[in-house]
Amino acid sequence: LPSSIKFLNPKSEKTAIGLLSGTSVDGIDAILLKIKNCGTETKVKILDFKTFPIPKTLKASILLNSNNSSAKIVNICELNVYLAKMFANAALNICKKNKIKTEKVDFIGSHGQTIHHLPDKSKSRWKVKSTLQIGDPSVISNLTGITTVGDFRIADCTFDGDGAPLVPFLDYILFRSKTNNRGLLNIGGIANITILPKGCSKDEVFAFDTGPGNMLIDSLVKILFNKNFDKNAKIALSGKLNFELFSILQQDYYFKSKPPKSTGRELYGEKFVKEILRFVKRIPKEDIIYTLTEFTAFTIYYNIKKFVPAKIKLNELIVSGGGSCNPLIMKLLQEYLPDVKVKKFNFNGITAESKEAVLFAILANECLCGNPTNMKNVTGSKKDTILGKICLAYN
Amino acid sequence: LPSSIKFLNPKSEKTAIGLLSGTSVDGIDAILLKIKNCGTETKVKILDFKTFPIPKTLKASILLNSNNSSAKIVNICELNVYLAKMFANAALNICKKNKIKTEKVDFIGSHGQTIHHLPDKSKSRWKVKSTLQIGDPSVISNLTGITTVGDFRIADCTFDGDGAPLVPFLDYILFRSKTNNRGLLNIGGIANITILPKGCSKDEVFAFDTGPGNMLIDSLVKILFNKNFDKNAKIALSGKLNFELFSILQQDYYFKSKPPKSTGRELYGEKFVKEILRFVKRIPKEDIIYTLTEFTAFTIYYNIKKFVPAKIKLNELIVSGGGSCNPLIMKLLQEYLPDVKVKKFNFNGITAESKEAVLFAILANECLCGNPTNMKNVTGSKKDTILGKICLAYN
Repeated sequence: LPSSIKFLNPKSEKTAIGLLSGTSVDGIDAILLKIKNCGTETKVKILDFKTFPIPKTLKASILLNSNNSSAKIVNICELNVYLAKMFANAALNICKKNKIKTEKVDFIGSHGQTIHHLPDKSKSRWKVKSTLQIGDPSVISNLTGITTVGDFRIADCTFDGDGAPLVPFLDYILFRSKTNNRGLLNIGGIANITILPKGCSKDEVFAFDTGPGNMLIDSLVKILFNKNFDKNAKIALSGKLNFELFSILQQDYYFKSKPPKSTGRELYGEKFVKEILRFVKRIPKEDIIYTLTEFTAFTIYYNIKKFVPAKIKLNELIVSGGGSCNPLIMKLLQEYLPDVKVKKFNFNGITAESKEAVLFAILANECLCGNPTNMKNVTGSKKDTILGKICLAYN
Repeated sequence: LPSSIKFLNPKSEKTAIGLLSGTSVDGIDAILLKIKNCGTETKVKILDFKTFPIPKTLKASILLNSNNSSAKIVNICELNVYLAKMFANAALNICKKNKIKTEKVDFIGSHGQTIHHLPDKSKSRWKVKSTLQIGDPSVISNLTGITTVGDFRIADCTFDGDGAPLVPFLDYILFRSKTNNRGLLNIGGIANITILPKGCSKDEVFAFDTGPGNMLIDSLVKILFNKNFDKNAKIALSGKLNFELFSILQQDYYFKSKPPKSTGRELYGEKFVKEILRFVKRIPKEDIIYTLTEFTAFTIYYNIKKFVPAKIKLNELIVSGGGSCNPLIMKLLQEYLPDVKVKKFNFNGITAESKEAVLFAILANECLCGNPTNMKNVTGSKKDTILGKICLAYN
């Protein structure tokens, strides 16, 4: 076997790097870690995590070229290479910072940058689901000298999977339990949950977006108090529930609709906020924030109560994301779910911020071991597939 | 090691498929072949070759989405998946036709479809060379169940290579000789030559476009005789050389410029033809065709005489492409090069049409063996790289 692929032995401990840039295009997340074994035997040890900022002009160009009315193929073609160079630099940089020679790194797992995502087959001219990531992994492997696995999402589109979300695989690998039914809840702008029944197999995992995360609270705190977020729920805790507003919010259809489901900024964005504002003129501002906070907790509770099958009695709810730092959300969740142990995400150095970077290192490890990692119950794919393309480095 | 990558043993005989669609987007070429060993030890045995037509609406959409003013990211994103399905069907089809089970095929090498190619770094906003192929290899590997290597060109762009041409690697693997200095000449629309000095290493190979191939002759035959091409040089052979036209044609700058160089339809296209037409009003039509045929042969001769270093005394010139079927071109080449044995391409079942499909199967084989296949003297890359991304099939 050529030396470039000697690391395919799944038993040994490997040094790896995970890379990604999210839809907000703020920075390249890079994680340096050790991975042992693969599949459900996987063990990880985090060495370092750093976010490398993406220059404003580059961010602007990426966003412009993600949009169907302004994207140009010349730019897509060039950015695919240029962004890969940025990703490679992030990998080289985190190695240097930790005094680890690139020869000692076994592989990189790189998500790249999503510039288009089309999971709605009914709207497709060619009747396909598709997704497009740039930041070419061949360029990353050549510049770093480290074999790189990338472009993870598209394989799942082959058999009508959405190519997203992929995080539930990480939840499955690291957080499934033999004795507890666990929920992994991430409260970002949108809230999503992964359900891990005790002793579950990969195909028994399911996950969906429950509804709004912090985005409604954040929007109204910005408008009413000119603050970016309600730190420690200080504003909400100085108000109280407004029943009328609460019952109006409950008319939202999304949070009540059946999984599989996913939503984005468009559903709880400007339009939704404007409707709230039209209604709340005579309500004390603090009460509005309290009520939105309770509504957010309520939609999560509602989804767990309604859509987690009765036989999977949830024992633990592990909360990550910005919402896990909101004590009112955490308190309300515990009150709504008295039989469930609600706790903040904390796992061997993996933080809410670094979780996704860990995911892509783990997906690369699985790909190199020949294991399928798409989750049919989560993405809707009809078949198991190995996610990722392997780009061998030549040294 | 997982079973999905057991075929990486370079010694055994492998069954492989090569796939590509060219810039004219007329069809998907599929070749089924046996490959033994790798590198300069490679042996191939062709089993079958077939071109699968690309439907007109799909061709139109691909061309529309290759053009910077009309390309839309939604279409690029979707066509990447849809075209991959067509490529997968071509592979499945050629297996079926030859009664070979897909489990017996070790790998596919797929070029995909180039929709953009930007080798001019000076014109790039981000100061990169880049290229974009669609027809995602992960989708092909999933649909066929055959591990697929694809996306060969972009790795070469990492170190400022053009990502093209790639054919000289095939010439090197199959046609280099220990005793003869060989030229591999392909006369398509444009003529290009690969020079293989005797006993050469990969880095001693060089290649470039010499100038017009059949395109000037074809254009004028169409305009003056309303025929698609000058079959058996019948028209030219009924005329004679017009010295005035010949000396005017010799003022063309491209064929005289130094390699590395490459040209396309834009240089010997409509504008060039119009200038010829303006000049030739009083010249017999047959003489025009004779003169263009001689000019074509002359530019090839000129390039060999001028740009093949004197120490590499060419012994053989092996000619492929449509031009090899033009007896006047072949006769003139032999007259211009009396010390060189000029002969028609013919190699163990590989035809001028199937040559490129063979290339991508061979590049896949090399990638799976961990061998670099870009040629620094040909593409301008500063470093050796392994071309291709490996997409493992899960069965």
